[in-house]
Amino acid sequence: MNYKEILKEIKPKESEIKKVHEIAKDAISYINKIAKEEDINVEAKLVGSIAKGTWLSGSSDIDIFINFSLEEDEDYLKEKGLYLGHNCSEHLNGIAEEHYASHPYLTSHINGYYVDFVPCYKIKTAKELKSAVDRTILHTNYIKKHLKSEKQKDEVLLLKKFMSEVGVYGSEFKVGGFAGYLCEMLILRYNTFEETLEAAANWKNKTVIDLEDYKTDKLFKDPLIAIDPTDKTRNVGAALTKERMSEFIIASRNFLNSNEADKIKFFYGIDKKETFEEKMSEKEIHDQISPYELYKQFKDRKTKTITIKFNIPDISVDSIHPQLKKTQQSIEEKLEDNDFSVFKSDYWTDEKKIGVFIFELSVYKQSKYYIHEGPRVWDKKACENFIKSHGEDYYILEDKLVLNKERQFKTAKNFIKSVLTKENIHIIKVGKNMKGLLIDTYTWQSIKHLLKDESLKENTDFLKFLENFLNPGQLLKR
Amino acid sequence: MNYKEILKEIKPKESEIKKVHEIAKDAISYINKIAKEEDINVEAKLVGSIAKGTWLSGSSDIDIFINFSLEEDEDYLKEKGLYLGHNCSEHLNGIAEEHYASHPYLTSHINGYYVDFVPCYKIKTAKELKSAVDRTILHTNYIKKHLKSEKQKDEVLLLKKFMSEVGVYGSEFKVGGFAGYLCEMLILRYNTFEETLEAAANWKNKTVIDLEDYKTDKLFKDPLIAIDPTDKTRNVGAALTKERMSEFIIASRNFLNSNEADKIKFFYGIDKKETFEEKMSEKEIHDQISPYELYKQFKDRKTKTITIKFNIPDISVDSIHPQLKKTQQSIEEKLEDNDFSVFKSDYWTDEKKIGVFIFELSVYKQSKYYIHEGPRVWDKKACENFIKSHGEDYYILEDKLVLNKERQFKTAKNFIKSVLTKENIHIIKVGKNMKGLLIDTYTWQSIKHLLKDESLKENTDFLKFLENFLNPGQLLKR
Repeated sequence: MNYKEILKEIKPKESEIKKVHEIAKDAISYINKIAKEEDINVEAKLVGSIAKGTWLSGSSDIDIFINFSLEEDEDYLKEKGLYLGHNCSEHLNGIAEEHYASHPYLTSHINGYYVDFVPCYKIKTAKELKSAVDRTILHTNYIKKHLKSEKQKDEVLLLKKFMSEVGVYGSEFKVGGFAGYLCEMLILRYNTFEETLEAAANWKNKTVIDLEDYKTDKLFKDPLIAIDPTDKTRNVGAALTKERMSEFIIASRNFLNSNEADKIKFFYGIDKKETFEEKMSEKEIHDQISPYELYKQFKDRKTKTITIKFNIPDISVDSIHPQLKKTQQSIEEKLEDNDFSVFKSDYWTDEKKIGVFIFELSVYKQSKYYIHEGPRVWDKKACENFIKSHGEDYYILEDKLVLNKERQFKTAKNFIKSVLTKENIHIIKVGKNMKGLLIDTYTWQSIKHLLKDESLKENTDFLKFLENFLNPGQLLKR
Repeated sequence: MNYKEILKEIKPKESEIKKVHEIAKDAISYINKIAKEEDINVEAKLVGSIAKGTWLSGSSDIDIFINFSLEEDEDYLKEKGLYLGHNCSEHLNGIAEEHYASHPYLTSHINGYYVDFVPCYKIKTAKELKSAVDRTILHTNYIKKHLKSEKQKDEVLLLKKFMSEVGVYGSEFKVGGFAGYLCEMLILRYNTFEETLEAAANWKNKTVIDLEDYKTDKLFKDPLIAIDPTDKTRNVGAALTKERMSEFIIASRNFLNSNEADKIKFFYGIDKKETFEEKMSEKEIHDQISPYELYKQFKDRKTKTITIKFNIPDISVDSIHPQLKKTQQSIEEKLEDNDFSVFKSDYWTDEKKIGVFIFELSVYKQSKYYIHEGPRVWDKKACENFIKSHGEDYYILEDKLVLNKERQFKTAKNFIKSVLTKENIHIIKVGKNMKGLLIDTYTWQSIKHLLKDESLKENTDFLKFLENFLNPGQLLKR
C-alpha cells in the first residue's frame, strides 16, 4: 500500500524541521557559551525524537540535555543545570516552569515550542548510569547510529501514528503503551511498518526483541521483552502493559485484514473526519458525545454507577496517575470483598485539579446478614473460642460452625461514605499524596448528577473518557 | 445425673408393652396358621425396636417380617407376602395400605397401632442377602443377643430421645440422621448415654465404630464409619450426613456443659413447656409462630425470598424427598450460575400433596450485560473464531478478547419462570417423577403471599419449617 499521502500529513515539513533545529541550536550554543564563561564543565546536546529525526509533525518537545561530568555531585548538577536552563530560557524570551521527575528539569515555552532543559550525567555506557534520564543520550546515540535512512524514519513515523490512533502509544503510566524508543527498535528489528504489524499479529506472550543478540531475555517476565541495545539488563518493554500489547496485536490483525480504504482510516482518530483538513472542532466532538447520550447508555446497562470527584494534589503527572489507579483499584477490591459486584471501574483526571473515580456496579445493595464461617466442629477448642467471641447464635453448615452476621455496609454508597473518613481510610490503599485531599474535597454523586457537573459536562476529554468507558475497544477497529 | 424422671416419661409402661406384644402375637400366630393351612412355607417374626425392647413410648410401629425361603422367587414372595398381610389385617379388623420401598409391604392400622407386614427372605448371614429389608432380621438378632440388660435398653432410650429432640434422629433421607440400630450400636460401644455424648463431643471426621473388630474401615469415606456387626462391608453410618453428625457433636458438648436443670431440657422440644404434662397444643404452637411474625423476620433480613409451590407426585415418601432436594439444589446452582446470590434455600413437603421450594436471595436483580470471556489474543485462530461467532463488539481485558453480552435472565423471577417450562426444564435437574407436575401446577409467589396461602398458613409443620429456616441451630441449645 502507498503511504505517501499519510506521510505527507505526519512528516514534519522543511519549515518545521528548520525552525525546531534553529531553536535547539540557539539554546545549545547559548548554554555552552555561558557555561564556558562561568567555568561550568558541561556540554548541552539535542536528544530525543528531534535529534533522531523520528518525530510526528507538530507533536514533539525539544529535548536539550545538559551533560555534567560524572565527578560532579548531584546538588551541583541540579543547581547549575537549572541555572543554565533559566538563563537560556530568559535569553530566548521563554516562559519557564520547573518540574520534578526522578530528576529536576525545566520546561520553557519558546517561540511556540516546549523546550525541556534536563541536567544529566555524561555517560558512555549503561554501567555508568547515575539517574534514569542519563540513558536518553545512549538511546539517542544508538538510534542515530543504526536508524539512518529516511525510509526507516518514515516507517517509524507510520508506526508511531498508527499506535497513537489505536491508543497504545506512549510509555507513561496513564497509557502503559509503547515508548518512542521501542517503536524505533521495532523498525530496526522488522524493517518496515507493515512487517512490524505482520510480526505483531503473530506475537506470543513473552515475545523477545534482542537487537544486539545479548540473550538475556530469561531475566524478564514481561509479555514483551525488548532488550535495551544499550543495556542488556533492561527491558524497554517493561512499561508496556499486557493489555496495551494485546490491543496492538488485535489492531495489527484488523489493519492487515482491511482493504486499502479502511487501512487509511487507522491513521485517523475514530471520531475524526476522514482527512486532516477536515478535523472536527471541539464543539463538533462535544455535540457527538453529549452528556445526555452518555447518561442514556449508562441507564440502559441496568447497573448503578457511582462517582467520586475530588481535588488532586499538586504533584507531577507521572506521580498522580499511579496514585489514582492504586486508590481506585483498592476501592474496587474492597467493594468486592463486601459482596458488591463491580462491573467496571476506572479513574479520570484533568491532570490539573480534578480527579474522578467511577464505579459501575451490577450489585449495589446487599442483604442485612452474611454467613460468617467458623471452625469445623472436629476442633473442639476452636469451636469454644468461636462461641466465646461470637455468641450463641451459631448453627451448622456441613461440618462448620457458622452464624449470620450483620453486614457493616449494606449499600456501596454506605461503604464509600464510611471509608472516605479519617477514621476508616486505612481500610483502603490510597496514593500517598492524596489521602487528605480525597477525604476533605470529595463529593459523592450518581453518574446522572456528575454529567450535570459544571466543571465536567463541557470537558471533551472527560466525555471521551466516559464514551470509551462505555464502549471500549472502538479504537482497535475502523 | 438422675434420669429416672425422664425414663418414666419415655419408657413404655407395662400396659403399652403388653398391648403391643399382644397385637404382634395375634398377627404372627394368625399368619403362621394361615400359611400352614395354605402350604406357604413362611415364618412370621417380630423384628425392629419392639422386638429389641428399645422403642420410645408411643412412637413405634410394630414390624412383622414374613420370612420366605431363599429358593422362592420374588414374584411369589411379593404375592404371598401381601396376601398374608391383607388376610391378617382383615382378621384383626385393620385398615390396610400397600407401600413400596425397595420392596412392597403392607401397613395396617390395628387397634391403635400401625403394623407393618414385610415379606422378606430368611437369611442367616449378610452374604445371602437378596433385598435391603432382609438385613433387619440380622440386626434384630444381633441386638437381642448383645443388648440384654434393662439398663442398656434405658441408655438407648435416653440416646434416641436426646437425638430426636436435637433433630438428628432418623436415617430417612429427610433427616439424614442416626438410625435406631446405630443408636443401639453406640450404646454397645460406649456403654451409656452420657459416655456416648462424651465420646461424641470429641469425635473427629471419620470416627470408626467397629464392634466386631472387622478392621474394614478403610472401605469407607463417610464421616462416621460404623461397621455393621452383621456385615463387615457395610457402613451403618452411611446415611448420616456430615451436618447431622456435626449437630450431634455440638449438642453433646452443649449438654455436657449444662447444669442439671438445663440438661433435662434437652429431652424436651424447644417449643414445648417444661414437662410432658404441659405439652403445648397445636393452637398454642401456631400462636407462637404466627405467619406475620415470620414475614417480619424475612423482611428484616433485607433479602428477596421467592417461593414455588406445586403438587408432588404420588410416590413413596422415601422417593419424594431426594427428588425434591435434587431439584431445589439444581435451581439454586443455576441461579448462582446466572449471577444471582442465594443466601439460603430449602424445600418443604406435607408428604401428601404439596411441595414448596424456597429461595432467599441476597442478589435478586442483575445488570443487563455480563462480561463474556473469549480466548487470549496470542491464539490467533481462536480469536478469529470468537469474532466470527460473537461479532465485532469485542474489547480487550488483560490479554483476553471479551465482550459485554446481554444476560438471558435479569431477575431471579425471570429465570425461574423461564426454566419451569417444557422448553427449558432441561436446564435444571429435576426429580424424575416430578417434572410434569412441577411445570403444570407450580405457582410462583413472594414469601409474603405464600404466608397468606390458605393451604399453608395454618399448617404448623410448615410454619415450624420456616421458623427453623430463619433460625437454624436452635435445637442444639437449651
